[in-house]
Amino acid sequence: MNPLDPVEFRRNGHMVIDFLADYYQNIQNYPVKSQAKPGFLLESLPDCAPLHPESIETIINDVQRDIIPGITHWQSPNFFAYFASSGSTASFLGEMLINGFNVVGFNWESSPAATELEMIVMEWLLKLLQLPNCVLHGTTCEAFICTLHAARESILDHIGRENARKLAVYCSDQTHFSFQKSAKIVGINPKNIRQVSTSRSSNFKLSPRLLDEMIKKDIESGLVPVYLCVTVGTTSMAMVDPVGPLSDVSSAYNMWVHVDAAYAGTACICPEFRHFLNGVEGASSFSFNAHKWMLTNQSCCCLWVKDKSALTKSLSTNSEYLKNQATESGQVVDYKDWQIVLSRRFQALKLWMVLRSYGANGLREVIRKHVNLAKDFQMLVSADKRFEIIVPRYFSMVCFRVSPEVIGQCYDTEHEANEFNQKLLQSVNATGCVYMTHSIVGGVYFIRFVVGATLTEDRHVIMAWKLICDQATSMLCTPTPKCI
Amino acid sequence: MNPLDPVEFRRNGHMVIDFLADYYQNIQNYPVKSQAKPGFLLESLPDCAPLHPESIETIINDVQRDIIPGITHWQSPNFFAYFASSGSTASFLGEMLINGFNVVGFNWESSPAATELEMIVMEWLLKLLQLPNCVLHGTTCEAFICTLHAARESILDHIGRENARKLAVYCSDQTHFSFQKSAKIVGINPKNIRQVSTSRSSNFKLSPRLLDEMIKKDIESGLVPVYLCVTVGTTSMAMVDPVGPLSDVSSAYNMWVHVDAAYAGTACICPEFRHFLNGVEGASSFSFNAHKWMLTNQSCCCLWVKDKSALTKSLSTNSEYLKNQATESGQVVDYKDWQIVLSRRFQALKLWMVLRSYGANGLREVIRKHVNLAKDFQMLVSADKRFEIIVPRYFSMVCFRVSPEVIGQCYDTEHEANEFNQKLLQSVNATGCVYMTHSIVGGVYFIRFVVGATLTEDRHVIMAWKLICDQATSMLCTPTPKCI
Repeated sequence: MNPLDPVEFRRNGHMVIDFLADYYQNIQNYPVKSQAKPGFLLESLPDCAPLHPESIETIINDVQRDIIPGITHWQSPNFFAYFASSGSTASFLGEMLINGFNVVGFNWESSPAATELEMIVMEWLLKLLQLPNCVLHGTTCEAFICTLHAARESILDHIGRENARKLAVYCSDQTHFSFQKSAKIVGINPKNIRQVSTSRSSNFKLSPRLLDEMIKKDIESGLVPVYLCVTVGTTSMAMVDPVGPLSDVSSAYNMWVHVDAAYAGTACICPEFRHFLNGVEGASSFSFNAHKWMLTNQSCCCLWVKDKSALTKSLSTNSEYLKNQATESGQVVDYKDWQIVLSRRFQALKLWMVLRSYGANGLREVIRKHVNLAKDFQMLVSADKRFEIIVPRYFSMVCFRVSPEVIGQCYDTEHEANEFNQKLLQSVNATGCVYMTHSIVGGVYFIRFVVGATLTEDRHVIMAWKLICDQATSMLCTPTPKCI
Repeated sequence: MNPLDPVEFRRNGHMVIDFLADYYQNIQNYPVKSQAKPGFLLESLPDCAPLHPESIETIINDVQRDIIPGITHWQSPNFFAYFASSGSTASFLGEMLINGFNVVGFNWESSPAATELEMIVMEWLLKLLQLPNCVLHGTTCEAFICTLHAARESILDHIGRENARKLAVYCSDQTHFSFQKSAKIVGINPKNIRQVSTSRSSNFKLSPRLLDEMIKKDIESGLVPVYLCVTVGTTSMAMVDPVGPLSDVSSAYNMWVHVDAAYAGTACICPEFRHFLNGVEGASSFSFNAHKWMLTNQSCCCLWVKDKSALTKSLSTNSEYLKNQATESGQVVDYKDWQIVLSRRFQALKLWMVLRSYGANGLREVIRKHVNLAKDFQMLVSADKRFEIIVPRYFSMVCFRVSPEVIGQCYDTEHEANEFNQKLLQSVNATGCVYMTHSIVGGVYFIRFVVGATLTEDRHVIMAWKLICDQATSMLCTPTPKCI
């Protein structure tokens, strides 16, 4: 048995390529959201590993029969849930090369091309985003943890480790929960994870004035402010915190300011969206997920830090078995010292293939197409008086619901609005023709319609609206408008 | 432009399969360790992303011309450095499916098959390793951070958060540096990361007696012991800490005991190696990296925890936008609450394909073959009186050097031994025919010869020995033995 026999590799590789090409050809025939019931797979697969080898043909048949019914098809053109995970052929091919070479790039020495290609690609992105400084890779949670750790170590060096429990970090009530989780993991006292409240009147932005007031009070009561998380494109509503003014407030207190643009960061490669990042040069770090909207397969998050030595100072290790002449020469970067984990896949290869295969203009075209499709959807919703748009649309997400007044004409209390919209979403998703998700902000339940799947076209958006509209009609007693 | 056009996907996918099959066919023609100089790629690639799309053919040509010279060929049969990163066709195909489906499995709802297949595969591994309890995924550093965080939160719930700076964690001077780094990240006072010294007389094992003494003293001086890291297969020498006795000591103090078997864990699916894990049922958690020695591509680490609620209690989040009926029914597992990050690739798919495609017996066959090749290498080294084996060989790694006495016959002082062996390693690696790495323990520099690359056969081991032997001969003034 040779598990890397080139003949078998070639034969089986071609087979799986055909399997996946067929999958993309037929993807619209599957229910978008898996209809599987809890336990479906646990009940159908054997409870121990086979003793003897099985053929790839057998396994692929089982993927078709057992696995695919349990998959929610994130690549389906009818996927409008969460934020999309936009795959592409170039990124897929990049992953094939990453896995084919299967190198571990923890330092320069262990595979020089992995480190240098990452430096190149990060420089390319830096120019596309007009960012002021330097770069690395991870996931958003990793980015939070690395920068929180760097900020904490840097301040404890000054004020002494015995003050660790006084450290306070700041975010808004719209910040992604990963920030709070990360702060807890690095040992910030949960009471000192401070949330500034936002409100509808300011489109749920983090207010620099309220932040400043909170920090001042906290300092008076003995806390030491250390870190602020600013969001460009919040998870629930894709709202935007004012980066510049918030950086100004925080830098007056010598705080680390991180800008989390996980979803919306990709849009900022288009000049017309770049203004959302204005002031980012005042921040300490910035991250976005290429795996959300830059046609890059899971996972790929890009993190910039203004002062890379703050990171490497707190994350460097110096183990004998990794010592080498290249590192000692000081001429190379060792990315293991920019991140939590030691192992590193050759992620830069797929991002490089995406950037080359589609070009900056091709990527901008995809972003603009998705934003325009979201605009179209917004127009359809706005034209139907039974619905309301919850917040302005900046990117490719529309937040909407059936308005309480309309529901009030059919049901008893205003309280029913949330329940009604939840039922509406569930019944639309249950058709299997489309998948959207929801959120609740300020007590208001609404449906999030996110355009971002690579294969989505006009007709999918129109079909989604028709389904929503028809379903609302069947649930409401009001006069029926024509749904397209 | 359709970045997931099935026709283009099929055509380009077949092209890359052929490219990689050719790569495996010719892999022995490349120098194992890249001969690239710092800056080689930075100088040859453009400094900004292309504006317009480029063809995949062009990009693949550039991979061949620019990238491959900068790759250290971890899949080469002549790769004996670090610990191997053993890829396989089945795992590669699994990665193709993972990337083709490109789902995000943070909770059950988001793609039920991802969660349930992970439960199934973890159960399969649990049975192969005869482990007592339940399971999940990550990387070793993530495993450290999650379990350290869980252990810390659990004890602070009892003793109060104001005692955080008293917490102490334990390891040996042979524990991987990632443990110390992880402990710092979760905010353990660096002074309280306590290292028990090991010695040659006990094969560099962590001594339960010394550990107990250290803990007792620490408690007297006001520290609170919370966590012990035990290693099965240390990085420098693949030595083994006594799992059972160390668990007994630690559990007397209610400490969390983690068993890190990153490299050697895979071997324990063979009954003849399982005894190294004896006593693991007394530990709190256990992890190993399938991406090291279980024919699984980067990255794939398996973590078992005895009390999963300790993890989920400290890592759970409850965000509105992820709420769903499946979670609320209590019938499903949401793996986002077992790990640091939110995003999850469908990693179980590749492990499942590996286990099915090779079967438990096929995997055992690979382990035994590698161990036997290491035994052969050890015999060759032992038969040459100029060399010495540094520590016993338990798995597939041989630690050796040219002995100081022999070097002393040619050079002035005993001090030269480390320098001589370093030069020997560098000159052997510089041939490009083989790649090994080194470590230093107790002041002794030695060469680590790790068998683990999937393609390695007898002839590669023999060739490596001949190179080492010939090179030593040319560097020594002693009578020349015949190198095979």
